[in-house]
Amino acid sequence: MSTDTITLPPAADMHVHLRDGPMMETVVPLIRHGGVNTVFVMPNLLPPITSVSSALAYHQKLTSLSPTTTFLMSLYLSPSITPSVIAEATATGIIQGVKSYPKGLTTNSDAGVVSYEAYYPVFSAMEEHGLVLNLHGESPSSPTTTILNAEETFLPTLVDLHHRFPKLRIVLEHCTTAAAVEVVKSLGPTVAATITAHHLYLTIDHWSDSPHCYCKPVAKLPSDRAALIAAATSGDPKFFLGTDSAPHPKHAKQGAEKVAAGVFTQPYAVQLVAELFDKEGKLDKLQGFVCDYGRVFYQTKDRGLEKESGEKIVLRRGGAKVLREIINGDLVVVPFRAGEETWGLEWVKA
Amino acid sequence: MSTDTITLPPAADMHVHLRDGPMMETVVPLIRHGGVNTVFVMPNLLPPITSVSSALAYHQKLTSLSPTTTFLMSLYLSPSITPSVIAEATATGIIQGVKSYPKGLTTNSDAGVVSYEAYYPVFSAMEEHGLVLNLHGESPSSPTTTILNAEETFLPTLVDLHHRFPKLRIVLEHCTTAAAVEVVKSLGPTVAATITAHHLYLTIDHWSDSPHCYCKPVAKLPSDRAALIAAATSGDPKFFLGTDSAPHPKHAKQGAEKVAAGVFTQPYAVQLVAELFDKEGKLDKLQGFVCDYGRVFYQTKDRGLEKESGEKIVLRRGGAKVLREIINGDLVVVPFRAGEETWGLEWVKA
Repeated sequence: MSTDTITLPPAADMHVHLRDGPMMETVVPLIRHGGVNTVFVMPNLLPPITSVSSALAYHQKLTSLSPTTTFLMSLYLSPSITPSVIAEATATGIIQGVKSYPKGLTTNSDAGVVSYEAYYPVFSAMEEHGLVLNLHGESPSSPTTTILNAEETFLPTLVDLHHRFPKLRIVLEHCTTAAAVEVVKSLGPTVAATITAHHLYLTIDHWSDSPHCYCKPVAKLPSDRAALIAAATSGDPKFFLGTDSAPHPKHAKQGAEKVAAGVFTQPYAVQLVAELFDKEGKLDKLQGFVCDYGRVFYQTKDRGLEKESGEKIVLRRGGAKVLREIINGDLVVVPFRAGEETWGLEWVKA
Repeated sequence: MSTDTITLPPAADMHVHLRDGPMMETVVPLIRHGGVNTVFVMPNLLPPITSVSSALAYHQKLTSLSPTTTFLMSLYLSPSITPSVIAEATATGIIQGVKSYPKGLTTNSDAGVVSYEAYYPVFSAMEEHGLVLNLHGESPSSPTTTILNAEETFLPTLVDLHHRFPKLRIVLEHCTTAAAVEVVKSLGPTVAATITAHHLYLTIDHWSDSPHCYCKPVAKLPSDRAALIAAATSGDPKFFLGTDSAPHPKHAKQGAEKVAAGVFTQPYAVQLVAELFDKEGKLDKLQGFVCDYGRVFYQTKDRGLEKESGEKIVLRRGGAKVLREIINGDLVVVPFRAGEETWGLEWVKA
């Protein structure tokens, strides 16, 4: 497909970090700027979202900042999540998943999981009620596990959980390796994976000296990136967009002794993906990846979860330059590929 | 060997970056603080040291800052280095090597080598005159070469150069992989390798989010680190200390959009190595690695290159804390393992 513009329904971004406080107030209005009207929201605040009431309170804050966006909420897997919490969460109609962070592996994951076995009753309840399990799929570092093979080392856990709970919908979040793509393909239709915009662009060489490109899981080898691009542009509904857009204040990325993990792509979520799909000659697969497959997996339309504004997004090749910085009061955030050209995007009445 | 103190001759650090201007004035006095009185000085200034006269001028500046230190100088391999320059350099008695940087791979390497073949006449002249070839052993990034396998990809070039110039002394600088250790061991006695202090400590997980631990070549896997420790503590004279101490202003490491490559270990060069050898139960191998093998390879004693002060260094377990920062006027430099405990060191009359 060779075209300068492409019109799509609003996109769904099935993995976003919207934070709290001033960062939330800065980032939430930018969801729409990225062509997105439906997001699946991560629960790793401080303290994490571990109760239905805190998820609902968070949902209310987010909705008041962007009433036209559909916020699908998640809980943070931790000992306070019990089968009865799962039942209560499902009844809200707002909470759609439970996110599992291995302890200590990324931003605000100190309360994360050490062993999955303790959560089998929770997973059973989720299977029964239809909540999605969202896995941060990395094993902790050890004498043989580094950030390079942490995802591959985790894959047997994914396989095991799927075999134990075959009807449980599981998303391997922000997958980064050819190995993960192969395993997700090999498992049943209840297992899917999100792919970020930035992992379609990055390899280890990019982030090694660039704090704004550093995230967990880290971008890996050119062969891994090629496998992610192939999966994203394949038309296989098991792979859909979850940007893992993870804003940090500039000083925590560029200036810190320890660089915070996360790449901020929210304002250009769809633009970045469109640019990449265009380079690959796969614009015909764009709508499936950014709009359709995530919604199908989460059953948002079937279950009437979506707000409908009757709008569409129009993408234009080379139509925009990524802002250098986004500044809101004292807060400065640096987007991925700051200052570089990407696709433009505008909203139109359908 | 279990002991709280150990007395050694002053150490030789066969790979240092001493820079120019205020950074040079800050760093040179710290060589002695690290237990070292002989250094092999890298030529990657701006502009690089590509003539005998600029090497001698640099040598004079360094000597005036630390008259008791022996500065062994190098030239930067580039088109201005010809066989006649090699003859002229050898005649000085001060220039001991020629450093080859692959173009664009590390700090100030824009003038570096694209193809080695053009330099075969220079290598012949070096072989004849007895100058050492110092290789930054990494291949440029390509669709299959990343910072992870750049050293391994370079090793066939090392092997080829050794076979073409078997009497040419070659140092594979700052080797970082098990593969490099094996290749260096497999080649003749004219091929050696330096190992840094920081690569004995670091793996990829350490530098991924720590600008002060980021350098080229990057620290790699735990298995690579284990191979470096085994080589350094083996008593094999093909492996000796070259810290590749590479100071940058703090703002270029912690605060930059692109992090400058280099780890600054100069003030604790021997202390850091002693601490590591102690943990490995290999203090009996320390003198060979930090004092003897580099001098033997460079033939500094045979050729009367060394200044003799009649002093020794005394190392003490847990006797010091690494400074948080070193501040000289406007310049701030952050040492490796800032704030952490390491071995202490003092100079004594022999």
